[in-house]
Amino acid sequence: MPVPFSEFGKRLRFPAIASLMSAALHDPDLLSLAAGFTDSASLPLADVGRAVRRLEDRNGPPEHLQYGTNQGRRGLRKLLAGRIALLDGRSVEEAEPDRVLVTNGSQQALYLATSVLCDPGDIVMVERPSYFVYLDMLRGKGVRVLELPEGREGSFDLEALGLVLGQVNASGGRIKIIYLESYFSNPTGASRTAEDKSGLARVLAAQAVHPVVIEDAAYRDLYFDVPFPATSILSLPAFRSLPCLYLGTLTKPYASGLKTGFGICTSSALLERMLWLKSHHDFGTANFNQAVLEEILREGGLERQMVILRRSYREKMKALDGALRSEGLATLGWSWTEPLGGIYLWLRAPHGLDTRTDSAFWKSCLEEKVFYVPGDLCYGVDAPTDRVRLSFGVLSPENLVLAASRFARAARKMAVPA
Amino acid sequence: MPVPFSEFGKRLRFPAIASLMSAALHDPDLLSLAAGFTDSASLPLADVGRAVRRLEDRNGPPEHLQYGTNQGRRGLRKLLAGRIALLDGRSVEEAEPDRVLVTNGSQQALYLATSVLCDPGDIVMVERPSYFVYLDMLRGKGVRVLELPEGREGSFDLEALGLVLGQVNASGGRIKIIYLESYFSNPTGASRTAEDKSGLARVLAAQAVHPVVIEDAAYRDLYFDVPFPATSILSLPAFRSLPCLYLGTLTKPYASGLKTGFGICTSSALLERMLWLKSHHDFGTANFNQAVLEEILREGGLERQMVILRRSYREKMKALDGALRSEGLATLGWSWTEPLGGIYLWLRAPHGLDTRTDSAFWKSCLEEKVFYVPGDLCYGVDAPTDRVRLSFGVLSPENLVLAASRFARAARKMAVPA
Repeated sequence: MPVPFSEFGKRLRFPAIASLMSAALHDPDLLSLAAGFTDSASLPLADVGRAVRRLEDRNGPPEHLQYGTNQGRRGLRKLLAGRIALLDGRSVEEAEPDRVLVTNGSQQALYLATSVLCDPGDIVMVERPSYFVYLDMLRGKGVRVLELPEGREGSFDLEALGLVLGQVNASGGRIKIIYLESYFSNPTGASRTAEDKSGLARVLAAQAVHPVVIEDAAYRDLYFDVPFPATSILSLPAFRSLPCLYLGTLTKPYASGLKTGFGICTSSALLERMLWLKSHHDFGTANFNQAVLEEILREGGLERQMVILRRSYREKMKALDGALRSEGLATLGWSWTEPLGGIYLWLRAPHGLDTRTDSAFWKSCLEEKVFYVPGDLCYGVDAPTDRVRLSFGVLSPENLVLAASRFARAARKMAVPA
Repeated sequence: MPVPFSEFGKRLRFPAIASLMSAALHDPDLLSLAAGFTDSASLPLADVGRAVRRLEDRNGPPEHLQYGTNQGRRGLRKLLAGRIALLDGRSVEEAEPDRVLVTNGSQQALYLATSVLCDPGDIVMVERPSYFVYLDMLRGKGVRVLELPEGREGSFDLEALGLVLGQVNASGGRIKIIYLESYFSNPTGASRTAEDKSGLARVLAAQAVHPVVIEDAAYRDLYFDVPFPATSILSLPAFRSLPCLYLGTLTKPYASGLKTGFGICTSSALLERMLWLKSHHDFGTANFNQAVLEEILREGGLERQMVILRRSYREKMKALDGALRSEGLATLGWSWTEPLGGIYLWLRAPHGLDTRTDSAFWKSCLEEKVFYVPGDLCYGVDAPTDRVRLSFGVLSPENLVLAASRFARAARKMAVPA
């Protein structure tokens, strides 16, 4: 039964994330340090139940079980916009709910924007490394990936960036999107200062390159001790002349099962076309979930949950980090930095040890019943082969310690004799 | 702030449905016979609440608030596949949950399939008239629309179809999809017999045309008295050699606010690529909603709700139909058929009266505070200008009677003196 696929359909590939997950499904004893799943023990079961009951107890027809609007509930959009304004040090009054669209996780907003912006052959610039599901999506769309040059301190190399932009311009390349993960990034856990982001905007302006800047802030709320102090691109003056899209989510910091994210867009032309496309996708994210979340945000449930979650992720990061260190991983030459937020450790293996899927190390980990995200998946070009992403999102502290000891056992097997 | 849109992005248009809705939003006194919204009074508030409490009372971590899988909950898929098998007169044991994908309304499944199948310039064949949101989506993708020829009785004209397919083949056209709404169609309310569908499949086979056949069965459960007796294309032998995608939903027959639909696909190659694309959209429909619906299906809540809903829509159809007749609409030359299911009446205006958006009749209706879907939106080519879709989904019987009298007043104003 041959299927007449489109060029786009033919270009799609088995997603890296799905192949990782299927490995896990085949062996229930495997401990996954790969999945970006969220903490299960702290999920806000009682709060969600209470919100549903409050909706149930209202008078009148249950509008939350009826279709909503394509853009999303205005009440929820108002709360979300207000919250981001506060995080950026502005007043709630400055928030603009009409610039918000509610989506099926922030992933859908990323998909909508990329679809209305990029033709095959167009260019998206990403950080090195970047979010591997987005890299997968870009490959599926036939989009070229270029990397934003960085200096030694992890901030942008603006001079090198100017040169790259100049070359792309000269060769007629079309840079459509700059994609930033500037708060506790997936996979590195690193964040970007306001100065660093503003410098980027100034170089873009100087080179007369006008892409859409997408700031994916999925982990912004998941700091361990203090928020990362940079305001978002929505509030940085240097970005005022560029169309900007800020991506936020209630999956990671609240409940992933409700699958509700959002975008805030400074360009009404961009927002409009994203909405037109969303009307073809689904004509609006589930109204029920939005109504539940609106209740929860209104009565402070989100902030309460995040206090619990931050403590939990801090403890879990410490458990994994501590266990890896006490297992002697650093002594074996592995290196990593303790992150200040997010749900990932980003490791570099010693002596160029190959950590890719199906490498000897990968197989050794599977034998030890533990697995991870091979770091090469997180690069658009020139992927190093010795990086590893470990997630401490879903496993309990006890299982993280167990997983770390399995991982370290595999690492010891690979160790080069001194 | 210019935005560098893609060719696809530039082709998108303000969706017809959104422009209709915005008209309604500007005047709260307007009664909408346009919206395809569902009955509000009967929404299953208590059942959803109970299902949430049952999930809450379970032991262990609340996995329903955690991410689910890209394809959807296996338990829900099993129940859905089993239910469709039963409707088709087969046994539950024959159902194949692995062929099911759960989506954000069946709309998303339609979007995924069309994206992996159609390049700009490709052809989709639709019924005359067809679902106007799908026609909008096809225009947005630059896909050509051809219509399936019909005879006088509303069944396919197989001879004419053979000629059309031969011509398309000869001119190198690529027919990628045949899109059918074969149960209480939107907008006409008509259904297709098994013989009619099988005849279509045989002509396709004879012409060596192998498109994907999509059967959109969104209204299949919403009959008034008895189910429409045709089995779906999934169970018709004539379709065995064609890749088939059956679309079902729990929005229309249960709760639109949960925004959960599904597809059942007989081609694993097609299903696979739809899933790859879904992983880029959202990596799975909200697990919470799926868990709630799985509970509800398991304990018989869906069937209970549908009994209530069928009675309600039957009553509402009778209210609208009866009011239009007693207002003398038929005497004025308007014609329509009483449907056997669904949520729409499909009217033909007398003497070629123009019913399109912004026509004198449209404006007259707005003055009378009532509005409808202009029927020309439901045609891919050669749209007649004298059709009207009226929905009895969301208004109460009382408001349907009021809306009918307003509509009839506008119709009388337009009446040609004898």
